[in-house]
Amino acid sequence: MTAVLEHALIGRLAAALPRSPRQINRLHESDAELVSLPGSELILAVTTDALVEELATGLYDDPWHIGWMLVTVNASDLAAVGAEPLGLLLCESLPSDTSAEWIAALQRGIGDASLVTGLPVLGGDTNSAPTPHLAGTAIGLVSGLPPLTRCGCRAGDLLYASARLGTGGAFALTRLLPGIAGHGAFPFRPTARIAEGQLLRGRATCCMDTSDGAIATLDELMTRNDVGFLLDVPVPEWTNRRATAVAHAAGLPPWMLHAGPHGEFELLFTVPPDREADLVHTAATIGWDPVRIGMAVPEHTLSFHLDGAPRSIDARRIRNLFTECGGDARQYVAQLAQVVPAA
Amino acid sequence: MTAVLEHALIGRLAAALPRSPRQINRLHESDAELVSLPGSELILAVTTDALVEELATGLYDDPWHIGWMLVTVNASDLAAVGAEPLGLLLCESLPSDTSAEWIAALQRGIGDASLVTGLPVLGGDTNSAPTPHLAGTAIGLVSGLPPLTRCGCRAGDLLYASARLGTGGAFALTRLLPGIAGHGAFPFRPTARIAEGQLLRGRATCCMDTSDGAIATLDELMTRNDVGFLLDVPVPEWTNRRATAVAHAAGLPPWMLHAGPHGEFELLFTVPPDREADLVHTAATIGWDPVRIGMAVPEHTLSFHLDGAPRSIDARRIRNLFTECGGDARQYVAQLAQVVPAA
Repeated sequence: MTAVLEHALIGRLAAALPRSPRQINRLHESDAELVSLPGSELILAVTTDALVEELATGLYDDPWHIGWMLVTVNASDLAAVGAEPLGLLLCESLPSDTSAEWIAALQRGIGDASLVTGLPVLGGDTNSAPTPHLAGTAIGLVSGLPPLTRCGCRAGDLLYASARLGTGGAFALTRLLPGIAGHGAFPFRPTARIAEGQLLRGRATCCMDTSDGAIATLDELMTRNDVGFLLDVPVPEWTNRRATAVAHAAGLPPWMLHAGPHGEFELLFTVPPDREADLVHTAATIGWDPVRIGMAVPEHTLSFHLDGAPRSIDARRIRNLFTECGGDARQYVAQLAQVVPAA
Repeated sequence: MTAVLEHALIGRLAAALPRSPRQINRLHESDAELVSLPGSELILAVTTDALVEELATGLYDDPWHIGWMLVTVNASDLAAVGAEPLGLLLCESLPSDTSAEWIAALQRGIGDASLVTGLPVLGGDTNSAPTPHLAGTAIGLVSGLPPLTRCGCRAGDLLYASARLGTGGAFALTRLLPGIAGHGAFPFRPTARIAEGQLLRGRATCCMDTSDGAIATLDELMTRNDVGFLLDVPVPEWTNRRATAVAHAAGLPPWMLHAGPHGEFELLFTVPPDREADLVHTAATIGWDPVRIGMAVPEHTLSFHLDGAPRSIDARRIRNLFTECGGDARQYVAQLAQVVPAA
């Protein structure tokens, strides 16, 4: 099978490194690292994620938004393991000529997301760097029910998203190809699904956030669980309506919103059919309305309901395509249309 | 009083951010952030530190050594609070044309330091960046006796170093001003003082690592504790002998080895006189021979034993000098000689 390009690098980096006997997850098995604490029932959930390419390409350029996203991308990994947030460490490296106003707006974005996600900033490090590099580390705790991981789904389980998807793709489309949809940038201010993740512990059989886009996420869950997914719900029914309008305005089929490597920081998860009623009922108690999009199937294929019928999609190919295109958004969109020709 | 330039920035960054009610330390009060875990006696110690300027200036350039230092700088902050190491997260951002050999050597350095410090790598993030940026987050635990902090020292307490100091300064001198001492680079492979830090809990009244150089560390401990330090032990008796030889070869007084902002990742700590015998005795059981260098005094001044007599040194001025010189090592050394003229 074709390798995931990013995994090949991470595998090489990790190969020589000693691992901890206290670590519960293996490489790629969960969105956050899970470590059992000695003499305690607690499990520590930790994750680190940096904004680098997002800043270099101009995908993120408003300082408040950058601060908001720095917290959110890290918080979202805690959400995907169902952890209770404990705090955040920041490593902010900025050019020495960065203006005080820019930094103040960045810190406001960090502070706003920090409050919303319940992740207070514990400390950090500051450096002078030729180009901006913003890294975060989120720390959470899991107690009682076991953490969510990417592993445990079985054929027949129902596939859910925490909300309609496609906003991350619509945002990237309008930012990287300005004018393509005849609009300005698509508004994008995701909130990590912390409460939803906690509710899913003991209910979902696997969970992963869509930080890399829905198709990459589904490809990863397929690999981890040796299943496929049939998305029997038509794409328009689980795609954000305003994102769909952006795709239409750009002359692109809406499924393409789920292909790109910039996702929306929602959760994709599976539940056995006999737990579905409980999920929907309990979700309603916190004002949450998860969206069913399909089901796990034994065959290792991803099928979308397109043009009125299920069509198999080469998820691995799509997942690697942006890297293969050297990050060129225009070339990427053109290639994507060739990978899945219109019916 | 003159502000610490780096603190002014950190204070501005932190001002707008919500803090955690679980956090035990306030800003600058400890080398690692300390957070009490709910429903448990455990205290989490976390710290993040990146290598950026060290790589940009060429201070660190061997990939194995860079990997070693990336782990060590973070582990050293855990050592300074007396934490038991739990694990490490890495955020590695490298130019896309970095060679496989360079990366392999980096990972070997990380792996070697990881084993020595007992800090397994739990996970991380990788990015493509125009210039190398390597960040680490170290996680540890404190249970039983309270953690070490920078606060708690009183006048009359004895000042100790975990070993003779000056190796970090000698290394920086030979790297940034090659040829100044008629040698190649001073060998520098510090090991975080993890076991020593744990032994100091319940014994030391304050502790801080010398990552920013001994004089900056003493200046910080003076501020935190409203004391001064009289280093009544002559400088040659607590300065590394090979580092002293480097200073002599460069025509510089050895005390200057302790002035620069690149330290040696040893611990500076204080013990009350009535605990000294117990400290020395217990240290010997782990093969450790801490070095007494002075004592805390009520006057808020730092005095070195130079040229046969105690002389007051403007620690805050020295601490800010490298930044004021714009990081120019040659200018810095010249200015330093003016701040403390020869007797």
